[in-house]
Amino acid sequence: MPRLVEVTELALRDAHQSLIATRMALEDMLPVCEDLDNAGYWSLECWGGATYDSCIRFLNEDPWERLRTFKKMMPKTPLQMLLRGQNLLGYRHYADDVVRKFVDKAAENGMDVFRVFDAMNDPRNLEVAMKAVKDNGKHAQGTICYTISPAHTVEGFVRMAGQLLDMGADSICLKDMAALLKPQPAYDIVKGIKDTYGEQVKVHVHVHATTGVTLVSLMKAIEAGCDIVDTAVSSMSLGPGHNPTEALVEMLEGTGYTTRVDLDRVLKVKRHFKEVRKKYWEFQSNFDVETEIFKSQIPGGMLSNMESQLRQQGHEDKMDAVLAEVPRVKKDAGYPPLVTPTSQIVGTQAVFNVLMGDYKVMTGEFADLMLGYYGASIAEKNPEVVQRAVEHYKGQKPPITCRPADLIPNEWDKLREETLKLEGNNGSDEDVLTYAMFPQVAPKFFKERAQGPKSVASDPSKKPKPQPQPGDENMGVLTRELQYAISFNGKEYQVKVAPAD
Amino acid sequence: MPRLVEVTELALRDAHQSLIATRMALEDMLPVCEDLDNAGYWSLECWGGATYDSCIRFLNEDPWERLRTFKKMMPKTPLQMLLRGQNLLGYRHYADDVVRKFVDKAAENGMDVFRVFDAMNDPRNLEVAMKAVKDNGKHAQGTICYTISPAHTVEGFVRMAGQLLDMGADSICLKDMAALLKPQPAYDIVKGIKDTYGEQVKVHVHVHATTGVTLVSLMKAIEAGCDIVDTAVSSMSLGPGHNPTEALVEMLEGTGYTTRVDLDRVLKVKRHFKEVRKKYWEFQSNFDVETEIFKSQIPGGMLSNMESQLRQQGHEDKMDAVLAEVPRVKKDAGYPPLVTPTSQIVGTQAVFNVLMGDYKVMTGEFADLMLGYYGASIAEKNPEVVQRAVEHYKGQKPPITCRPADLIPNEWDKLREETLKLEGNNGSDEDVLTYAMFPQVAPKFFKERAQGPKSVASDPSKKPKPQPQPGDENMGVLTRELQYAISFNGKEYQVKVAPAD
Repeated sequence: MPRLVEVTELALRDAHQSLIATRMALEDMLPVCEDLDNAGYWSLECWGGATYDSCIRFLNEDPWERLRTFKKMMPKTPLQMLLRGQNLLGYRHYADDVVRKFVDKAAENGMDVFRVFDAMNDPRNLEVAMKAVKDNGKHAQGTICYTISPAHTVEGFVRMAGQLLDMGADSICLKDMAALLKPQPAYDIVKGIKDTYGEQVKVHVHVHATTGVTLVSLMKAIEAGCDIVDTAVSSMSLGPGHNPTEALVEMLEGTGYTTRVDLDRVLKVKRHFKEVRKKYWEFQSNFDVETEIFKSQIPGGMLSNMESQLRQQGHEDKMDAVLAEVPRVKKDAGYPPLVTPTSQIVGTQAVFNVLMGDYKVMTGEFADLMLGYYGASIAEKNPEVVQRAVEHYKGQKPPITCRPADLIPNEWDKLREETLKLEGNNGSDEDVLTYAMFPQVAPKFFKERAQGPKSVASDPSKKPKPQPQPGDENMGVLTRELQYAISFNGKEYQVKVAPAD
Repeated sequence: MPRLVEVTELALRDAHQSLIATRMALEDMLPVCEDLDNAGYWSLECWGGATYDSCIRFLNEDPWERLRTFKKMMPKTPLQMLLRGQNLLGYRHYADDVVRKFVDKAAENGMDVFRVFDAMNDPRNLEVAMKAVKDNGKHAQGTICYTISPAHTVEGFVRMAGQLLDMGADSICLKDMAALLKPQPAYDIVKGIKDTYGEQVKVHVHVHATTGVTLVSLMKAIEAGCDIVDTAVSSMSLGPGHNPTEALVEMLEGTGYTTRVDLDRVLKVKRHFKEVRKKYWEFQSNFDVETEIFKSQIPGGMLSNMESQLRQQGHEDKMDAVLAEVPRVKKDAGYPPLVTPTSQIVGTQAVFNVLMGDYKVMTGEFADLMLGYYGASIAEKNPEVVQRAVEHYKGQKPPITCRPADLIPNEWDKLREETLKLEGNNGSDEDVLTYAMFPQVAPKFFKERAQGPKSVASDPSKKPKPQPQPGDENMGVLTRELQYAISFNGKEYQVKVAPAD
């Protein structure tokens, strides 16, 4: 009897986030919801930070309404979301009462599996969210962000799995957002978790496909005992996205492993999205396999952001210097994994270091990172740079070692009050959460919500003649506004980088 | 000590054949020859049927001059070619004297490794070519074409390896032209060969990437003891092509295996071809992963040909019927592997069966296949269809069981005489071979050769606006003229299908 390997389908969240800048409208998903629900998946990932953001920023869709619709259309298969721990779906740490409220509302609206992660891998940043998920009787998946650094070891990742299990995690996710997870460490980490904490511990592996090696890593993870893997239907797969669902299923034939995925259902989903994707040509990512990531260890999305920042400053020629600077900044910061938001914070600081000199200009976010306001780092930080961070705030913001949210007083009532003043708000707690997480975007969304969803898809035949430029390959789309508080020679500046629209 | 796995780079032959219709000019390869030669490859595949054909048909390049240039530019690393056994690089069986002459001349001009295969997997069709390679002191690689059918088993493939070894093969290639080789059979066949004939038998695995699973198959083949694998530099990889060289190298990190490939050299090659490929946008294949092949077991190139034939007849709607017919025709023919030329022969007959009724119209090639003129099939043929083939030739061409070339009298002198009459021939044996293999194209090539190479690349910015049509995804380019002798209700017809230009 082959061992059953379960599969999570990413088409509705990470796949279109990775491939078409999270622009897919609900109307393009509905025709295959029945097939997805009946295809034998362990879960359907369909909600997260970027999908929420894109709904209100670009699609004039209420993300909560999207979630309720998913639940109605896909009642059999658990729905899954990606949650940034204490950051929720936003870009700052929230007070515990807001975190609890968000989880309550997500559970109430139909969410079943909560994959909770923290960019710093600081388990304390997951505690409140994980407990709230358990309190709602839902599946709390504790997440390890995989990265490579002198401070990261197989043993360390296994140890973190133990901390997540102690927290009550129903399963452990090994999350490889940059496609850096090679077959051997995939095997070793999964094996380490199983050997240390028991066969019954469910391990779920999430990898991107960017570097071309990670389907092999999934095979090795499965051989080590991995219970669930993440894939995306083939027409929404590969490039910066994920490995194809069908390939995963087919590759297991004759091995000691099998899935319960119905490939006839998946074929319908594949054909549907193949056509849908054409309508989003405007947002299409570059689909090349990219193994240079192994050298730089910089995720593709972060590369795009840095290139775009350099270009805006007219310093495209400095890219190699920035690539060399990133590892130094990462080391100074105690080797945080590079994933939202740390990837942006480290990347931007590297750009500033190259353009203006080492830490001459520091972003507020980077200062906060150095002072512990994003959580603990795995390795010691460079004390001189910590000192620079203290100076950034003129000594007004001390370094901390506690859980960052311990310093944030409850804020739900205040946020609710502010939300109720906004034109078009519907008085719901869901609207308060939208405002809490996206205070810049929510007011406009509430005002225009009644106009209904706006697709940003376009006629595939309108696709203009491509005009490739040398060096264009890695240009990404900035999907949200970035704000930085910058101190330069003792003076404060506010810098905004917004999508060019 | 990790075990060394050797790597063959396909960029110069199969990669551009699979991705840009074999159109790459020598001038676009020369800038990276030094890097390729110093990157630590076991061999550099750079010559074969389609590259030869493309040289004289499209590029006005003498393929022999290309070979000599490769040898001069890449003196350290063995050059490798793909040879269709008794078919050489053409589409019919040649007399033994021509086969010997071809191998002699290829060896003399610089070829080191000859990968010899036969579409029917009939070892007798390899005998003469393999012996000629050995006589020249070169590396004779005996090839097993991998396919899936009720008649094909791991044991059968292992048995064939034994026949090739008996023939003096210096190594065995397991060749998977349709990306159908899944991890488990890859493991089982390689393991079977090693267990049966000894660890010292060199096994080389060639897979395409089309279905998305075959990098895993390479991993499994390596675990089973595979010595050499085929890959293509990442910027010339994936889609209908091959797995990325860099991904193969990176994936082995920390495992019990390693390569001696220098990734810094490969990076230069990658960046070069990334730019080069843009110039060939006009010939670019569709890059989607395609797992439906597992269902139909029909290689991508064959699908394109059948669709194109149906379209020319105005019967696009019959594609599903043709897809269902192919397995029946394959079975009637005794389950030949589907690879040039059997893929075209079986595919075209399936089209005719659907359009005109079962074997009502038979192509001359299909009749020959049924009568044994391409070699023996692994399983018994349908006797009724064999009878129809006899009737196709009105009983004038009997079924045979001998080696087909046993019936072909020596023809070198006659071919030489014909060649010497052609305007522009240079009197060399190489020209005779060009004429022998491409009698329709050679005369024009000889006449125009003096004008020098003509690149068919174009300015990437000239790429026109794509106008996707439903169903266009699998449209391929017919790269050569196809001729069929057809008997319909007892009457003979000559049918030609030519590239649309």
